[in-house]
Amino acid sequence: MTDTTAGPADWSCPVPLRDHPVVVMGHGGGGALSAELTRHLFLPAYGGETLGELTDSATVTLGGARLAFSTDSYVVRPLFFPGGSIGDLAVNGTVNDLAMSGAVPAYLSCAFLLEEGTELSTVGRVAQALGAAARTAGVTVVTGDTKVVDSGHGDGVYVNTAGIGLIPEGVDIRPQRARPGDVVIVSGPIGQHGIAILSVREGLTFGTEVTSDTAPLAGLVQAMLAVTPEIHVLRDPTRGGLAAALHEIAETSKTGVVLDEGAVPVPDAVATACAFLGLDPMYVANEGRLVAFVPRTHTDAVLEAMRAHPQGREAAVIGRCVAEHPGMVVARTGLGATRIVDPPIGEQLPRIC
Amino acid sequence: MTDTTAGPADWSCPVPLRDHPVVVMGHGGGGALSAELTRHLFLPAYGGETLGELTDSATVTLGGARLAFSTDSYVVRPLFFPGGSIGDLAVNGTVNDLAMSGAVPAYLSCAFLLEEGTELSTVGRVAQALGAAARTAGVTVVTGDTKVVDSGHGDGVYVNTAGIGLIPEGVDIRPQRARPGDVVIVSGPIGQHGIAILSVREGLTFGTEVTSDTAPLAGLVQAMLAVTPEIHVLRDPTRGGLAAALHEIAETSKTGVVLDEGAVPVPDAVATACAFLGLDPMYVANEGRLVAFVPRTHTDAVLEAMRAHPQGREAAVIGRCVAEHPGMVVARTGLGATRIVDPPIGEQLPRIC
Repeated sequence: MTDTTAGPADWSCPVPLRDHPVVVMGHGGGGALSAELTRHLFLPAYGGETLGELTDSATVTLGGARLAFSTDSYVVRPLFFPGGSIGDLAVNGTVNDLAMSGAVPAYLSCAFLLEEGTELSTVGRVAQALGAAARTAGVTVVTGDTKVVDSGHGDGVYVNTAGIGLIPEGVDIRPQRARPGDVVIVSGPIGQHGIAILSVREGLTFGTEVTSDTAPLAGLVQAMLAVTPEIHVLRDPTRGGLAAALHEIAETSKTGVVLDEGAVPVPDAVATACAFLGLDPMYVANEGRLVAFVPRTHTDAVLEAMRAHPQGREAAVIGRCVAEHPGMVVARTGLGATRIVDPPIGEQLPRIC
Repeated sequence: MTDTTAGPADWSCPVPLRDHPVVVMGHGGGGALSAELTRHLFLPAYGGETLGELTDSATVTLGGARLAFSTDSYVVRPLFFPGGSIGDLAVNGTVNDLAMSGAVPAYLSCAFLLEEGTELSTVGRVAQALGAAARTAGVTVVTGDTKVVDSGHGDGVYVNTAGIGLIPEGVDIRPQRARPGDVVIVSGPIGQHGIAILSVREGLTFGTEVTSDTAPLAGLVQAMLAVTPEIHVLRDPTRGGLAAALHEIAETSKTGVVLDEGAVPVPDAVATACAFLGLDPMYVANEGRLVAFVPRTHTDAVLEAMRAHPQGREAAVIGRCVAEHPGMVVARTGLGATRIVDPPIGEQLPRIC
């Protein structure tokens, strides 16, 4: 898998990457390995400032308009799963990345990477699902690309989307803005997407069928912003789950997070599946949830607006931001004890999105 | 390669796709098969208006700014080749798509799709090349994504970039604007990229080494627009070569194109290679050339500005736009005879970009 043709630029592995001279699945898991790759390989290569913020989408100004710009590739297996498909993820994932900066998502690009021999009806079903999800999310696919790779060098269908959206005046939502005193809210029960994928992939059932929570969150965010523009941080806890999202915020803002573990909504079937499989729901991927850091004074009103929205009906306060233990996430367990929530290294489940 | 999980949407193959129930390499070739897929599969699924224009980039308005937005995936083999790499293509290809609408490219997203087991030094060299190409093109990589697929489901490194740029006031460049009387200009010699890839892939030499022409064209376009905003069409003749580009313009604008075959600049080594391999340089991919449709009155001034720019030194008038034979491209050969230039079906050479 090495390209033997001499390249135009030499590259030597910086120390933190030396333990892994080759790509491992965890480099795509959204955890510590992914962050290492970005920090030590991509950032030095690009020399970009905006990418350095490591948020889900970049904020750029063009022609006087303040825009959010984001991209994600989707490699989930299977292509169709309970509650959604790669087409839904490709829209909702990118729409949600944009929404997490407060932007109103507007336009998507969509690039298909197809494997030779894939049935066109499969491609058609993915495209239909993608189009339907775009209509639901209120965004338009305006440009695209199709590439085909030879059989054995792909996996049926991979999709990449990029999106742009407009950030309303007065809105400034980013991980750096978390402040001690902020209240931490989650928009709904966690762990559904990861468990749904795992169930169908492994042929497991856990009582009731767990369906993916994949959903567009831009409407919910706009409902929250209608209450107050003073929302400090928004983040969709996808790969690496709630634990990864909270860690990233704590680390970036140099604050601590205290989590009330009992207050985190976990569906029974997810809890059962996690117990059975030895997984922690805190690390399981979500595709239709957000976590918000909101100043205490606005908490009640924001929570009320969230619960009035279809995507936030089960919103709950799950913790608070503190000045102590900056960069750390600490969970209070049922009996008053505390435990440290470690950041994930890779992803418990590869190719989840 | 069929996904057996029941999908949320049914999809039945429309008639023009029935000859190919599965994906073939030509579906990614940028020719008639690609167009069929877009027209009969993607467009009905998305229902988008802007995508319907089938230009290389979409023009959208956001916050009062008129933007170009484009995406491309890059799957070229080998990753490094004479004159460039997948990193150069990933920047220049998307930058050029934006430039073909007259936009000044500003920001790129960059998504890596890595195969498990790929050496990190290979990923590093690609990222370095990509960063260097971005600096040369004057664009900033502001957001990114990395996914990893299991060994045997990728090919080392695939890259997707999307880009946004600002379209200057008064500029309206699109295939629909070709008019009988327009003069057709090419910015330089054709066929180099395709032959460079073929040479290194097949281990062939044709006298002098042929190097890829990969280059960013936004500077050249701005130099042309400084002469007059009245440039009707710009197109970079990539997959499918000059023949595909001219066909797309003729078809979209419902005009004809008459080509002076002898005036099309073809480097000696490319001509030799094409003769040896039975290829027509008109169909060979370029990655640093553009074709322009310019009103006759501005031709001399535009040509002068192009020749004063490093990317346009060998610019040449190669034909004209006519009212006759709409949708057709006709070439005048040396002896005064004419031949019809057929549109390409797929790509002569798969995975060229």
